Amino acid sequence: MNMGERNLYLHTISVEEALSKYYNYLQQNKIQIGGAEFVKTEDALGRITCEAVYAKSNSPLFNAAAMDGICVESKITKGASEENPIVLNLGKDFLIVDTGDAIKSPYDAVIMAEDVIEIDDTHIKIVGSVPEWENVRPVGEDIVTGEMIIPSNHKISPIDIGAILASGNLNISCYKKIKVGIIPTGTEIIDPKEKPMEGDIIDSNSYMIKSLVDNSGGVGKRYGIVKDDYELIKQQVKKSIEENDITITNAGSSAGTKDFTVHILRELGEVIVHGVAMKPGKPVILAIVKGKPVIGLPGYPLSAYLAYDIFVKPLIENKVNLDNKISNHNIIKAKVAKRIVSSLKHKEYVRAKVGKVNGEYIASPLNRGAASQMSMVRADGLLIIPKNSEGVEAGEKCIIELLKNKNNFDNIIVSIGSHDMLMDIVADILAYKYKNIILSSTHVGSMGGLMALKRGETIIAPTHLLDESTGEYNINIIKELFNRNDSISLIKGFNRIQGIMVKKGNPLGIKGINDLTKYRFVNRQRGAGTRVLLDYLLKKNGIDFNLISGYDKEVTTHMAVAACVKSDDIDFGLGVKSAADSMNLDFIEVGVEEYDFAIRTKDLEDEKIKAFIEVISGNELRKKLDNLGGYSYSNVGKIIKDIN
Amino acid sequence: MNMGERNLYLHTISVEEALSKYYNYLQQNKIQIGGAEFVKTEDALGRITCEAVYAKSNSPLFNAAAMDGICVESKITKGASEENPIVLNLGKDFLIVDTGDAIKSPYDAVIMAEDVIEIDDTHIKIVGSVPEWENVRPVGEDIVTGEMIIPSNHKISPIDIGAILASGNLNISCYKKIKVGIIPTGTEIIDPKEKPMEGDIIDSNSYMIKSLVDNSGGVGKRYGIVKDDYELIKQQVKKSIEENDITITNAGSSAGTKDFTVHILRELGEVIVHGVAMKPGKPVILAIVKGKPVIGLPGYPLSAYLAYDIFVKPLIENKVNLDNKISNHNIIKAKVAKRIVSSLKHKEYVRAKVGKVNGEYIASPLNRGAASQMSMVRADGLLIIPKNSEGVEAGEKCIIELLKNKNNFDNIIVSIGSHDMLMDIVADILAYKYKNIILSSTHVGSMGGLMALKRGETIIAPTHLLDESTGEYNINIIKELFNRNDSISLIKGFNRIQGIMVKKGNPLGIKGINDLTKYRFVNRQRGAGTRVLLDYLLKKNGIDFNLISGYDKEVTTHMAVAACVKSDDIDFGLGVKSAADSMNLDFIEVGVEEYDFAIRTKDLEDEKIKAFIEVISGNELRKKLDNLGGYSYSNVGKIIKDIN
Repeated sequence: MNMGERNLYLHTISVEEALSKYYNYLQQNKIQIGGAEFVKTEDALGRITCEAVYAKSNSPLFNAAAMDGICVESKITKGASEENPIVLNLGKDFLIVDTGDAIKSPYDAVIMAEDVIEIDDTHIKIVGSVPEWENVRPVGEDIVTGEMIIPSNHKISPIDIGAILASGNLNISCYKKIKVGIIPTGTEIIDPKEKPMEGDIIDSNSYMIKSLVDNSGGVGKRYGIVKDDYELIKQQVKKSIEENDITITNAGSSAGTKDFTVHILRELGEVIVHGVAMKPGKPVILAIVKGKPVIGLPGYPLSAYLAYDIFVKPLIENKVNLDNKISNHNIIKAKVAKRIVSSLKHKEYVRAKVGKVNGEYIASPLNRGAASQMSMVRADGLLIIPKNSEGVEAGEKCIIELLKNKNNFDNIIVSIGSHDMLMDIVADILAYKYKNIILSSTHVGSMGGLMALKRGETIIAPTHLLDESTGEYNINIIKELFNRNDSISLIKGFNRIQGIMVKKGNPLGIKGINDLTKYRFVNRQRGAGTRVLLDYLLKKNGIDFNLISGYDKEVTTHMAVAACVKSDDIDFGLGVKSAADSMNLDFIEVGVEEYDFAIRTKDLEDEKIKAFIEVISGNELRKKLDNLGGYSYSNVGKIIKDIN
Repeated sequence: MNMGERNLYLHTISVEEALSKYYNYLQQNKIQIGGAEFVKTEDALGRITCEAVYAKSNSPLFNAAAMDGICVESKITKGASEENPIVLNLGKDFLIVDTGDAIKSPYDAVIMAEDVIEIDDTHIKIVGSVPEWENVRPVGEDIVTGEMIIPSNHKISPIDIGAILASGNLNISCYKKIKVGIIPTGTEIIDPKEKPMEGDIIDSNSYMIKSLVDNSGGVGKRYGIVKDDYELIKQQVKKSIEENDITITNAGSSAGTKDFTVHILRELGEVIVHGVAMKPGKPVILAIVKGKPVIGLPGYPLSAYLAYDIFVKPLIENKVNLDNKISNHNIIKAKVAKRIVSSLKHKEYVRAKVGKVNGEYIASPLNRGAASQMSMVRADGLLIIPKNSEGVEAGEKCIIELLKNKNNFDNIIVSIGSHDMLMDIVADILAYKYKNIILSSTHVGSMGGLMALKRGETIIAPTHLLDESTGEYNINIIKELFNRNDSISLIKGFNRIQGIMVKKGNPLGIKGINDLTKYRFVNRQRGAGTRVLLDYLLKKNGIDFNLISGYDKEVTTHMAVAACVKSDDIDFGLGVKSAADSMNLDFIEVGVEEYDFAIRTKDLEDEKIKAFIEVISGNELRKKLDNLGGYSYSNVGKIIKDIN
């Protein structure tokens, strides 16, 4: 009788074995699911980037008014006071500007509307002076051409869409949505729309599975119900394989008298797993037909759900399971890495990066200008400063409304210190090679980073600080800054060529440091290695910094310096060659500096740090840096233990 | 000059004031956003139910084989053993069945294929007996007609779609998606597709806002860019109001020379708020035009994002922010409320309800049959029992993979105890009246509930336990079970009419308890109040339970009893009138019982419990119970403090 024809499982294997057996087979046979496609940025919500997105334009596109008011030349405001007001002529001395308006030469500063006293239709007076670049957002303040906006393998959020469009990218490369065919089988199965007779079972599973696929970011396609007939099922399976990336049959995956699926899949391709030691969900089939996964899910709803969740979802979500969003706002308390001053009048929301260092949340405030789109893209949360508070001190605990999933923060390497474009590339390589590791960099300059390391607020502190007396980099300053108990090591990084960036063709004919007092400069912030280098060079050459126009105009990254030099308002700046190259500027070398990573010795044992060292020492990064230019390599990844 | 025309804010108000001022205005003027519509169940993923969904059919639709094997009459297997095997004839003594096949009279049990020894094509032998209903899933075991499947205000998940279809609902009533028109304004604004000239600003905001709306479950519609022109903006705003539920303008909400929006909105309707004391985001406009919200968002990206998040999102998500899903699997440790036995051979996933009692997670395992769709709908998480484990003891800590958001569990009232349909209705009223409170009921019978209360695993224990000696309900058993330190109170609930359910028209002419030995019965599980009542009645009437056919066939809810009585295989059962009514059965009253809620006295102070008491005492519940029938009310909501 029929009883004998049941295909009893010879043996079942564990969930873990089944997963690794199947996925290894896929890998060894180089079976790729889906692929890449270009997607209109405006339609890319929820899609996963397959390549990193780089800015194609600056934001702002020009020097722009940061306030409503008037634009002036700062020099004509010098000496203005209550006792000695200065009267200005409309059209000659000033123009009326609204927030966002371009500030063009010769104007170089904006006075807020509230600080201006009207005399008549064409005259105003001012009772205070403004420094150069006051209330002006410099070109590229937020986004600089060539900068990485979004890494690869990143799920696109609404905020990302704004930033990507602002960076001039109308299309981006994303993973295709995985197409999944779903075939309900069974003679007793009827569609929910039919009226059930005794013995009928309503097919609700295939609709559930389609919704699960859609929910995972795939595209589920449900085929009609197929009776328990070997040939009919086989034809439908073949059709679905042609039309989809993955095929699911449900049910018939078991060992009953009418369970044909496993025989059909053995005829058409290869069955890798039949039967898994899980409950419910045991009768799972994991097969490959014509280079595509075909999975037989068991018939009971929960069995089908679980087997989907364990075996199918990762195949779809491998490309899409990078959800950075959380549905409910998530509140945590975090130690603030840096003092924030706030007004009593407002409830203030400050964007912040969040990391976990020694099990404690640390929040580093980001750029506070509301115009900055990138600070939103980079933010992990919003630090809330209540109304009637004057702000928070470094080290104080603060309320953070997380914008990302709490679980992510366990996988973050916090890096606070000097800026270099290579950090973005390292983050990108880490993200796709070690799915779980996120490198979160905050740029506060070398000295700021070492101070954060001292206070226990960062794991890595990228640094390139010159000891003016010895000409040596990094080692001495660490010895000075840390005491014995701290036990700091240095991971050797890259040699960077620093120099003077000037416009293409060097129209002003700048030759070196001694020419610098003649032209318009843009500086880096205090504590930045490049600033230390500049001051060292000025001192060495006996140049008074007061003679340099723009010494007080500070920006915080090499790329921002390059963007300024590219604009009409600045003639030169100091920075690394890679930034000059990427903005197509000329470059006059002034020295080679060592960009290394300070770290507590105990953290060298951390698996995430081991991965970081692997990435910085690897060929993949080196190839990308060679393309950028301006780097050289001698001891990359070498560890100098316990310096202090 | 133009400077004078700036509309400086007279004053700004706090975020909280602005929200309550605007929302109060909406409420007082009865402004409703969106509405309800019928949606095909298969297309309802992510939609929010506007009414609770009730089952239109049973699942399974008939008594069904739970295993592959043979179906037999249990009585002919009596006495079978290794020494004394019984030979059975195909077609006469048994039929071959696969899982899910209907089991029809006279057959009433299934023997697993593995336990059957084949003799020849038509004969087998068995070496053990099977009790009635062994390996048979009774009709309505999972879903019973009339039962609430999904509450109102619930976000539909893939699992829900399966269960709703299995319950015979092809369409469900959901909230319409909120339509939001987005109008980018500004003469300096250009579309990302245009080539920017100096002074141009790329409009990335309107695309970000559209994506934010879509992400919130609404439908964002982006209109073309409008120049800073009073009439043009006014026309576009009027058009968007006609076509959408909510309109957003961006930017022009501030006080600059070209910020017309607030004037236009004052002309067209009413500006409720202009200017909020938040940073960034200050220049927000909250207005109502023609009964529809119009919101002016500030121009800077972060300001626009924050103002959207605080003021617009709740308007859209009020109907949709009930996200039960979490993107990453979330692992917690929880105390198990009940012993679970598992096999060494499998990794087992047991569905569980999860609640927080006294700050500790408690997991109550649900029905373990893989066929049960409803246990998936009800589950909060999957309790994982590793391979090579024999199971877990009550009180042991276990790993749970959460299926819902962790944050939800702070808002749950855990209820473990006796089942009544009114608990579903109370949960539904709580969910829509007190947005945050979730009533999570597990049905283990009255005694099981009190034991859970004693072990600190539930907050409420619904109970209707008769003291056989006094005829009094609930009080005495609590006195016996708890010691002084426990301090238990009783919230009086409802009087329920209990009785015998028989088929419509009472074809067998059952008159009362004394007729019960003649017919086929279905029982409730041990510890259920109805079971105690039955045993009390049998004893009182001197009836031997061994004489009742089906005394050992147990189901766990009143509705499941009703569904069995509705089928061909059962003649009667004991339960409440409301269940009999809802399945259109006849009902012979045998007594009135008191269904109350035991609780620790200290928990009476909990805000959630106060809301619970308000709901059970309220008119809304009473109206719904009157419709069901079978309830009476005397002291509902009265509290008897510190019984023990």
